[in-house]
Amino acid sequence: MAAPDVPVSLSAKYALIDDHWSPKIVAEFNGNHVKLVKVEGTFEWHTHDDTDEVFMCLGGELVIEVDGREPAHLAAGDLYVVPRGVRHRPIASEEALIAIVEPADTPNTGDEATAAEESWI
Amino acid sequence: MAAPDVPVSLSAKYALIDDHWSPKIVAEFNGNHVKLVKVEGTFEWHTHDDTDEVFMCLGGELVIEVDGREPAHLAAGDLYVVPRGVRHRPIASEEALIAIVEPADTPNTGDEATAAEESWI
Repeated sequence: MAAPDVPVSLSAKYALIDDHWSPKIVAEFNGNHVKLVKVEGTFEWHTHDDTDEVFMCLGGELVIEVDGREPAHLAAGDLYVVPRGVRHRPIASEEALIAIVEPADTPNTGDEATAAEESWI
Repeated sequence: MAAPDVPVSLSAKYALIDDHWSPKIVAEFNGNHVKLVKVEGTFEWHTHDDTDEVFMCLGGELVIEVDGREPAHLAAGDLYVVPRGVRHRPIASEEALIAIVEPADTPNTGDEATAAEESWI
């Protein structure tokens, strides 16, 4: 799917998401994807060896445990970057709305098998 | 300045900005900058030949006039991508809070002289 040529309402897109930990692509720029994901619970520890990962919290709260750093506590309106090669684990005690930015085809867990599962909404 | 290793509160950063049309860098990932900018009034028509530009409206409303497209009307929570090489002009009738994502050292107006003026907050 081509990048949309009209503005994308993030709240309208979130309304279309009914699962957790399954990022959906909403925009593309310079070979990067902007993805929206609803999260709840504890994700697995993983590492992206070749890319930094941007997290923006748009609703709820997200904790990101990060090797070698204090856990990052994100509330709505907070932005956080996990550097490449740094192991991390996102945790949301209640449902949170997250936007991530990363290169197209970056796997969800650092495992390439998960990249193909992602799709535009 | 290195990228911060703690979450960035966008509202706290906006509170530090007291001018218009002067993007401030708040995060870096994969050679890209996330910049916050307060806008009001009409900017000049310009083109970024080598990069797509991501606009996210975080407060107020922004109209982006774009060559060959209908004007894009962004409210808070809306995202829009201006493709590389496409002339555009942002307009805000009242103050609006915008986040942009683009490669580090991308000039504000497509004119390289404006890139050096940008700084971290």
